[in-house]
Amino acid sequence: MPPRKDAKDPTAATKAALLKAARTEFAAYGVAGARVDRIAERAGVNKERIYGHFGSKEKLFDTVIKAALDEVTEAVAMPGKDPAEYVGNLFDFYSAHPDLVRLLMWEALNYRGEDDLLPGQELRVDKCRSKTESLAEGLGREPDASVARMVFSLVGMAIWPTVMPQLGRIMVGDEAATPEGRDALREHLVEFVRAAVSR
Amino acid sequence: MPPRKDAKDPTAATKAALLKAARTEFAAYGVAGARVDRIAERAGVNKERIYGHFGSKEKLFDTVIKAALDEVTEAVAMPGKDPAEYVGNLFDFYSAHPDLVRLLMWEALNYRGEDDLLPGQELRVDKCRSKTESLAEGLGREPDASVARMVFSLVGMAIWPTVMPQLGRIMVGDEAATPEGRDALREHLVEFVRAAVSR
Repeated sequence: MPPRKDAKDPTAATKAALLKAARTEFAAYGVAGARVDRIAERAGVNKERIYGHFGSKEKLFDTVIKAALDEVTEAVAMPGKDPAEYVGNLFDFYSAHPDLVRLLMWEALNYRGEDDLLPGQELRVDKCRSKTESLAEGLGREPDASVARMVFSLVGMAIWPTVMPQLGRIMVGDEAATPEGRDALREHLVEFVRAAVSR
Repeated sequence: MPPRKDAKDPTAATKAALLKAARTEFAAYGVAGARVDRIAERAGVNKERIYGHFGSKEKLFDTVIKAALDEVTEAVAMPGKDPAEYVGNLFDFYSAHPDLVRLLMWEALNYRGEDDLLPGQELRVDKCRSKTESLAEGLGREPDASVARMVFSLVGMAIWPTVMPQLGRIMVGDEAATPEGRDALREHLVEFVRAAVSR
């Protein structure tokens, strides 16, 4: 059995600890509110090493977002086979990872419009194009802008309950926060999308 | 012609100016990041008057959220008559008022779960109940939790493109930010909901 990479390479272990601590800090406070010394303390490393590894707080945030989005892609299959079940699975994933949803919200709040490049933008555009191609294939259509808009809406429906849980509570009631409420919401989403897409 | 109320009542005028300045400040920086002295400066009033009028920064935020939500209710009709057109109209409203969407995002980011009461919670619950009743009537169903979940999703679909414009750009392309792109997105939303609801 080969030795674990982390054991051989203290830099990789440090980097992983830093990313974990940074994700917690950014999810809680956003880019502007995050404090690099809290991240350093939580990861048990020197603050200077963060700048050494990542350059700046903003670049660290970019790295955290990219790593988190990679997890979504790995965890949830493409939409083409069954768009309704895709939304259900994506809903499950985001419900279980509210910290990732918070990262995307902070990103959105910092977004300044079309001249503002996003972290890993090209890679993210490519990933979304694959989703559009997958959905188009599933629907027997061309992967055009109208299919891309549908992917955007499907993702929105799936992530929405985790984006604004306070509105879920107001609109659906306290049950929205219970496991049963989540199951019912998932079922509603899957049925809603199935009805919309199958016509 | 009766004199304007503002002219007679300097307190009302001061309050209106404060609310306007507070809305701008809170939309930009959230509750934690907002600075009461910036609000006071922008409104051209003394900082102490803010505490006199509203009690605290948090209560001022609550007042701002409540006033902003009243605007939505006034501007957009109930969902029952035509749920698809309701989503289209709500999308138009939120697209034109991204500051309100940001307020809701900050509220969500500060929300700590079910023991955390929201500003004007009871009133907001009542308003949402009316929406559920309206939609239920339109669908010829009972106003139960499943209809409430549908209202929650309809609102989500309508607000989503304004919540995360950066994802719209990544998924749909630069056109998402143009007037034509918005029109196409509106059309997609209306069609999608029409298909889902009419089955």
